Amino acid sequence: MSAPDSGARRSGSTRRQFLLGGAVAGVGAAAAIGVDLALNQNDSSAEQVSVPLNGDTVVPFFGVHQAGIDTDAQAHGTFVGLTLREDVDRDGLRRLMRILTDDASRLTRGEPALADSEPEMASPPARLTVTFGFGPGFVARAGGVAPSWLAPLPAFAIDRLQPEYSDGDLLIQFAGDDPTTVAHATRMLLKDARSFAEVKWMQHGFRRAYGSVAPGTTMRNLFGQVDGTANPSPGTRDFDTVVWSAEGWMAGGTGAVVRRIQMDLDTWDMLDRTGREQSVGRYLHNGAPLTGTDEHDDPDFEATTAIGFPVIPEFSHMRRARSDDTTQRIFRRAYNYDEPPTGDRVSDSGLIFVSFQADVDAQFTPIQRRLDELDLLNEWTTPIGSAVFAIPPGCAEGGYIGETLLA
Amino acid sequence: MSAPDSGARRSGSTRRQFLLGGAVAGVGAAAAIGVDLALNQNDSSAEQVSVPLNGDTVVPFFGVHQAGIDTDAQAHGTFVGLTLREDVDRDGLRRLMRILTDDASRLTRGEPALADSEPEMASPPARLTVTFGFGPGFVARAGGVAPSWLAPLPAFAIDRLQPEYSDGDLLIQFAGDDPTTVAHATRMLLKDARSFAEVKWMQHGFRRAYGSVAPGTTMRNLFGQVDGTANPSPGTRDFDTVVWSAEGWMAGGTGAVVRRIQMDLDTWDMLDRTGREQSVGRYLHNGAPLTGTDEHDDPDFEATTAIGFPVIPEFSHMRRARSDDTTQRIFRRAYNYDEPPTGDRVSDSGLIFVSFQADVDAQFTPIQRRLDELDLLNEWTTPIGSAVFAIPPGCAEGGYIGETLLA
Repeated sequence: MSAPDSGARRSGSTRRQFLLGGAVAGVGAAAAIGVDLALNQNDSSAEQVSVPLNGDTVVPFFGVHQAGIDTDAQAHGTFVGLTLREDVDRDGLRRLMRILTDDASRLTRGEPALADSEPEMASPPARLTVTFGFGPGFVARAGGVAPSWLAPLPAFAIDRLQPEYSDGDLLIQFAGDDPTTVAHATRMLLKDARSFAEVKWMQHGFRRAYGSVAPGTTMRNLFGQVDGTANPSPGTRDFDTVVWSAEGWMAGGTGAVVRRIQMDLDTWDMLDRTGREQSVGRYLHNGAPLTGTDEHDDPDFEATTAIGFPVIPEFSHMRRARSDDTTQRIFRRAYNYDEPPTGDRVSDSGLIFVSFQADVDAQFTPIQRRLDELDLLNEWTTPIGSAVFAIPPGCAEGGYIGETLLA
Repeated sequence: MSAPDSGARRSGSTRRQFLLGGAVAGVGAAAAIGVDLALNQNDSSAEQVSVPLNGDTVVPFFGVHQAGIDTDAQAHGTFVGLTLREDVDRDGLRRLMRILTDDASRLTRGEPALADSEPEMASPPARLTVTFGFGPGFVARAGGVAPSWLAPLPAFAIDRLQPEYSDGDLLIQFAGDDPTTVAHATRMLLKDARSFAEVKWMQHGFRRAYGSVAPGTTMRNLFGQVDGTANPSPGTRDFDTVVWSAEGWMAGGTGAVVRRIQMDLDTWDMLDRTGREQSVGRYLHNGAPLTGTDEHDDPDFEATTAIGFPVIPEFSHMRRARSDDTTQRIFRRAYNYDEPPTGDRVSDSGLIFVSFQADVDAQFTPIQRRLDELDLLNEWTTPIGSAVFAIPPGCAEGGYIGETLLA
């Protein structure tokens, strides 16, 4: 695969999915299967059909934007927040990001890291992406000018933040369809980073397995809700406007919010189906707004019941999240988490909420403020972690992530 | 799908893989893809090829043996050890196992549990299996006669066992290719069990994703070692002899050993490739014994180097695990684990070692005793959890798991 021209802006849809040996826009692995099948189409014996392997699918690391943002969300996500060691200066940051970039580009191709202690674990790549983000401490250490929004979010009344899930100088998001590949890549890059930074927090999350449900299906969170319907679609101008920054060293980058939201499934159980649908403003079976029939129908916030109440309640999550101000939009890319319960509980579950937006203050914070003030879901959800990172743009082969800040 | 005749013994290979709407032995999803493809073979446009969904694949719950033992290992495994509440008597155990059997059979078909609070989460099944095991406390509470081997393993010198990963009255093993399906099934069954038992421990593990590597590929553990080569093959007489019990209420059942083995990847890193190969007795690149070229070659323990040392060292894991006594064999079905590291470490990883064997004392314990005495791998591995369970046989539709003990 040839390196992209670093000057050429590539659309989300063309960078999202490439296959070894040739680029196929949009359909990704489906196309690879098609090739496989064409070779087998005269073979009428079902037993001899080869199983197409998703493992070989490569998402290109190099590009105008970092991968792992407009990439169709993979099944597994590992999020790591690191704290820089005291003695790491601007030169050290540059060395760190060169090493991490080099190994991330290798691993995402399914090749071993430079000093890979388990080279056989690097394959298959299975759509592995590695995405880097800088916290306020990183940008300060680099002597750079931080975006105005690069700071901890304002304190919200519903927050019960724990330091072990919050903040950090450097974010590394690992995402891929194979959990073993994700685990190996995580270990390799944390070894690279060890002399520069230590792990502050790590969170493992999951969505549906690749090939388990139809591509393009909106995920459900562990409340059973269809989650992320209002997302802009990668590859559209709408998406580009919501997500990509155009400012200074951040041009082609974006802002990331990572929040750990505990979801109390044990008390959620006490709510009946109607109550659950009212709390979010959507039907559970297909995610349609309570005023519609299909998931992507526009909600009608003016519609009222026979006795005059809004069909979509004022206190519903959807109503509170939505603004008439079209700049208040974000791109969500969340993962579920499910940890062993303690005490008398039967679950310790929730959502690793991840959103990307060009300007966190202008786009994310107003939404969260409305939800903080009034959102019925707050009864069962508690933010226990929160972090904001500047995701720098991508780079061309030979370059490194962060070069627009550190070069 | 029709219910199996409870009197008919079915071989491992025929029960391992069924598809909705028809049974296909051995090749499983590959055959389903074949059908899908046949429908598409005149369609030359790659963009219109439908992606075959593994999600719809069902592993039958009912049968002579419980599923999840001879089933090709799924990508995700969740293991839960429960402690029975004080007031649960034999009648209570029967009620508990009827409820659990009923909901497990529904969920493994991709149908909601009886009182499913999130019915949309039950689909797709993605080869979900649920397997139950009884600890010594369960059998005693039932007033039954326990197999002679149903007790904690003897203490080994290398053990550093922690109660939060050890023992328990009831084991539930959830395994499936979709992590969201596994999480939902876990929650539903723990809700069923809540008034009878509380969670003592829970462990999440993973292997390669379905469709990520070729079917039949032996897994690698996080040391990068090919792990499980010597396993007997489900569907063979050899497997049946090693795994299935023929005794009393356990006829058609087996014994399970579940041990949490911490693997110190941070110190493992200090060992070079040759040292790693000597420690296990196999080549890292393909798992072949150091005296062979292919993974499944028989090792030659008599072979010596030019200067007279054994090619496969006496202290190697493979040499110590192997016995001339052919009754000392087990069937391994392990999962990797990878948890957030603490302190200055970059990993907290290891193996959820799971083995099935008809007689734990006769088959497993002698192997473990030899490994305890001398196994170079002990330098980097520490057992931190251990539990033994009696896995009762399967049941026919209308019956329940444990009926041979409780009826």
